[in-house]
Amino acid sequence: MNNKAQIICIGDELLIGQVENTNASWLALKLTELGFWVEKIVTVSDKYNDIISAFKNASENVNLVIVTGGLGPTNDDITKNVLCDFFKTGLKRNKEIENHISTIFNKRNLPITDLNLQQADLPENCDVLFNELGTAPGMAFKQNSFVLVSLPGVPFEMKNIFEKQLNVYLKNHFNLPQIFSQTVMTSGIAESFLADKIKLWENKLKDNNLSLAYLPQPGIVRLRITANQNCVNGLDQINNSIDELYKIIPDKIFAVGDIKLEEFIGKLLIENNKTVSTAESCTGGTIAQLLTSVSGSSKYFKGSVVAYSNDIKTDILKVNKEEIVKYGAVSEQVVIQMANNIREIFKTDYSIAISGVAGPDGGTDEKPVGTVWIAIASQKNIIAHKFMFGNDRVRNILRASITSLDMLRKSIID
Amino acid sequence: MNNKAQIICIGDELLIGQVENTNASWLALKLTELGFWVEKIVTVSDKYNDIISAFKNASENVNLVIVTGGLGPTNDDITKNVLCDFFKTGLKRNKEIENHISTIFNKRNLPITDLNLQQADLPENCDVLFNELGTAPGMAFKQNSFVLVSLPGVPFEMKNIFEKQLNVYLKNHFNLPQIFSQTVMTSGIAESFLADKIKLWENKLKDNNLSLAYLPQPGIVRLRITANQNCVNGLDQINNSIDELYKIIPDKIFAVGDIKLEEFIGKLLIENNKTVSTAESCTGGTIAQLLTSVSGSSKYFKGSVVAYSNDIKTDILKVNKEEIVKYGAVSEQVVIQMANNIREIFKTDYSIAISGVAGPDGGTDEKPVGTVWIAIASQKNIIAHKFMFGNDRVRNILRASITSLDMLRKSIID
Repeated sequence: MNNKAQIICIGDELLIGQVENTNASWLALKLTELGFWVEKIVTVSDKYNDIISAFKNASENVNLVIVTGGLGPTNDDITKNVLCDFFKTGLKRNKEIENHISTIFNKRNLPITDLNLQQADLPENCDVLFNELGTAPGMAFKQNSFVLVSLPGVPFEMKNIFEKQLNVYLKNHFNLPQIFSQTVMTSGIAESFLADKIKLWENKLKDNNLSLAYLPQPGIVRLRITANQNCVNGLDQINNSIDELYKIIPDKIFAVGDIKLEEFIGKLLIENNKTVSTAESCTGGTIAQLLTSVSGSSKYFKGSVVAYSNDIKTDILKVNKEEIVKYGAVSEQVVIQMANNIREIFKTDYSIAISGVAGPDGGTDEKPVGTVWIAIASQKNIIAHKFMFGNDRVRNILRASITSLDMLRKSIID
Repeated sequence: MNNKAQIICIGDELLIGQVENTNASWLALKLTELGFWVEKIVTVSDKYNDIISAFKNASENVNLVIVTGGLGPTNDDITKNVLCDFFKTGLKRNKEIENHISTIFNKRNLPITDLNLQQADLPENCDVLFNELGTAPGMAFKQNSFVLVSLPGVPFEMKNIFEKQLNVYLKNHFNLPQIFSQTVMTSGIAESFLADKIKLWENKLKDNNLSLAYLPQPGIVRLRITANQNCVNGLDQINNSIDELYKIIPDKIFAVGDIKLEEFIGKLLIENNKTVSTAESCTGGTIAQLLTSVSGSSKYFKGSVVAYSNDIKTDILKVNKEEIVKYGAVSEQVVIQMANNIREIFKTDYSIAISGVAGPDGGTDEKPVGTVWIAIASQKNIIAHKFMFGNDRVRNILRASITSLDMLRKSIID
């Protein structure tokens, strides 16, 4: 097997637990999708000996090593020096990278220091992987059949270099098997219920040399179907299995392919030439934040009122004061008014309104922490539902937001 | 140094990137706080050889190994068998654990299988760490000065065993030093400039047997100062060094101790009995979302208008239409009106307003992607600044939001 890989993450901050290592699992998924078998993930300190012995050990066991971290401008970052010693080479100033660093600093009107420019000093025998989003480029070293790639530890820079350049580089340098897989996006059903519901279908997958992984997120479960290596017509098999799945959970699948719910809703709204607004209480702007995280969202998202206090609900959203007193802010009556009024005030086709008890305070016997009312208004009708989420504030806010987007999706499709 | 530790995480799901490894960083933090030096974190597959060679390698290098995962009832979980071989022992049914497993299944009205009961078969020479929340107990092995602890991979079970039992076990079996460290929170200065500015101070730290780590996040750099083992009066040394640091970057430090900027602002507003509102364009509700992520934020946050379209800026925020046409929505004139008007409409003491080009579209030569205007209004005055961030949409939104919170902080402190 000549596609074995290792991931080495460098940084004291990871070993003292101050920063969570999100790079490792992201890289592991990407490498697996490309057809590599990640046999080990190792996190080591910023110490010279620890880094070099990790490199040595990996080079004896695998064909590909992806290294992240230790490329910053400060003195504690020594990955580049270790790489020079390991590959017996020296540093040389790269003019293109130097210009890139200067441009970044000039654009931001920031003075540039020697430390910054030293990020353009690169090992002589490496292939440079340009970092358009930052100052530390990636570096790829090739020695016979062994490839080592060093990437910055900053997640968005690392991911961008991987997607834009490393992906192709690895395909060119390795003889990778063709991996067939597809992701089915589901929403509005918890992992354990979903597993129960599709148990028979899942068993049939195995008979067809397909395998299934559940990838749960708050409010969403991604189902990843992969064809095993001895599967004939992998792509067809996968597509047939998805057709079967649709018959079992038609309203739970929102898309085939890895797409976020907020992106999918953006596409739906654009296709239908419709607009949306939100009136948020307990989610505090999270629905608006999710919708606007999609580039181009200004085409369909007009805006939002975050009505955290009851004054704003009555003064801006024109919710009837007596009804707030009578039914409480977390009620069907209030959330319906919020949805109808924001839709009217912001002149949009659809609106989402939400009011709930995110916690940890504010719960009562009647409306405990986790109680959330959501309403979706459109020209055609208004739909309101009550949900009971859990005890965790951050998770409640996210689950309520995703759930409201799922209700909007169904409303648009109807 | 006889308090070196390693963390070994077992599981194919971690190596294919299906599950994020949150256990490792949690354990790393706990072990560091106890006085261990975690020199390596290793993730390996469920294969026998991979597990046993990880155990062997660790036992030759450190005094403590914490293993997570591979203790489930199914056949792919083989950690217990590997442990028996490694410590040359056999399995024996533990009656207490057997009863515990039966009780759990009875409580949930679930039928119990042989596979489930086999979780009560434990290596003969281990100390059992009772798992009150699950069926797989933890196991501690001691061999001379070497300790290996195996814990279940389910995060909440693992954490519970650690807190309730392992913590004390480790304190009893190791001679642990007292570790002194402190985190200084800085904002409004990039890592490289900060490093440049405090270079002399940082060099002095080393002379005083203190060490420094830079932990950057968008808009924030955390500085973690730790006293080395040969540091006398570690706590005093750290406090003195922080006093010195205050003299160098008085306005960049927002807190001592690990606290988020939005939490700190919450405390400031409560202390001063003040309220805040936001008018957001390019950040799309992110500032509101950050402020309301803090529990108890309803005490000081009244709400927000996300004015994503210009209609909302004019109709709801009452921004002068001609000025939008004349200066553009991303301008000092518009952002000042947004701040003044939201403060008035929402009747708050402070307000934040923000308008910018998050990207990737919408940039012009005059106002390229990354251009952001931020204004802070209070009874006393209004302050507006222009910022040039980068090319990445998600990051621009986050940096703009954090920067606006930092401006609010300074405004409150003034």
